[in-house]
Amino acid sequence: MSNYRMVIQYDGTRYRGWQILGDSDVTIQGKLAAVISQMTGEEVSVIGSGRTDAGVHAIGQVANFHLQGNFDERALLAGLNRYLPEDIAVSSMELVDDRFHSRYQAVQKTYRYRIHTGEIPEVFERKYVYDYRMPLDAGRMREAAGLLCGTHDFKSFCGNRRMKKSTVRTIYEIRIEELPGELQLFFTGDGFLQNMVRILTGTLIEIGDGRRKPRDIEKILDAKDREAAGYTAPACGLALLHVEY
Amino acid sequence: MSNYRMVIQYDGTRYRGWQILGDSDVTIQGKLAAVISQMTGEEVSVIGSGRTDAGVHAIGQVANFHLQGNFDERALLAGLNRYLPEDIAVSSMELVDDRFHSRYQAVQKTYRYRIHTGEIPEVFERKYVYDYRMPLDAGRMREAAGLLCGTHDFKSFCGNRRMKKSTVRTIYEIRIEELPGELQLFFTGDGFLQNMVRILTGTLIEIGDGRRKPRDIEKILDAKDREAAGYTAPACGLALLHVEY
Repeated sequence: MSNYRMVIQYDGTRYRGWQILGDSDVTIQGKLAAVISQMTGEEVSVIGSGRTDAGVHAIGQVANFHLQGNFDERALLAGLNRYLPEDIAVSSMELVDDRFHSRYQAVQKTYRYRIHTGEIPEVFERKYVYDYRMPLDAGRMREAAGLLCGTHDFKSFCGNRRMKKSTVRTIYEIRIEELPGELQLFFTGDGFLQNMVRILTGTLIEIGDGRRKPRDIEKILDAKDREAAGYTAPACGLALLHVEY
Repeated sequence: MSNYRMVIQYDGTRYRGWQILGDSDVTIQGKLAAVISQMTGEEVSVIGSGRTDAGVHAIGQVANFHLQGNFDERALLAGLNRYLPEDIAVSSMELVDDRFHSRYQAVQKTYRYRIHTGEIPEVFERKYVYDYRMPLDAGRMREAAGLLCGTHDFKSFCGNRRMKKSTVRTIYEIRIEELPGELQLFFTGDGFLQNMVRILTGTLIEIGDGRRKPRDIEKILDAKDREAAGYTAPACGLALLHVEY
């Protein structure tokens, strides 16, 4: 049995997220599994490093899958890029140790959130940015970001209110870059809860526009209540950049 | 009467080009005129620096229009960006001399053509590049580009076979930039015939992939026959970058 590891890019706009639902046609995982099965004649289950929500993009999603037969990695890569829809591409494919598991072994993930702050609408990148179109104070947001880093119970930033497992996570870094008419937020951590990056972003925006104070982060973390945090920023601004093992 | 000059960006993917057709709903000019009329209550005709084909994009299209009333430029700019569809934006608006005419007074235009030469499909920029996905020899293309520069009869590069006016144009520069997995061609000239940049690009591609020799350019120009030149590269790779006055 062979274990293949691939890096995947996708424009999540028209998908219901990573994970296969009843109708596999509208998920990234479903599209990948369908093409691999068609090419190899084998039933295949594609394991991703984690789910991405409906509408969220990826530049470096990692996934692996097992095949009984021995298929050439380059042929699989070329075939996938020929038969996948134009909004999904596989950037690399390699044979890896049988024990490699893209979800269990992921140790660090980086997400990027793009906020368009300029006055003129973003025409070409409009599907990959949050069209906020108002200025934000990056200094205030950086102060708040500093308080979010470290190991905390992020229950207040979890979109799943019935989450039964631990909501403790470690954020290693939140970097905020200012570009002309755009703010880019880079989140690196050991893992993120459902909607967590989007709720962190919504909360940082409410701090950047003056509605909340940077110091409010402490109270929000302590509350362990989704209601205490800010709004969930839209999916389109978010992309999974890379996963480390 | 006031004369307004604006710079416009658009993603041309879903439009039938710049120029108003019977159904104004599917052209850039039609969309702009409709919104300006709605805001001002005046019939307006929007004059562009030139037409762009169906599917061609613009980053710096220039247009002007006249109004009887005196409307604030900033209010017009904000209103347009509020009511235009998300694939059209106005980046600037200014009151100009009554005699300014965006077509007659344009003295130089620059177009960019993007060719994706990498093996991995381009997911995020897929609507703005030509998905060629094979290597091209930029050296050969530069040699051919040098022979195209200058004042020539470009009849062989004109998509309109029944063109009655002069097909003589001057190309000031064709610059070819090599990026990872992409070739960008920048064309600067005093004006371009219908489909001319796309036929120039198709011909340069046939030289870059070895099907033709750089020196063939001389024969193609001499032929004054559309059949002598290469194919018309797809619209999606092309964008009007800027217009000079």
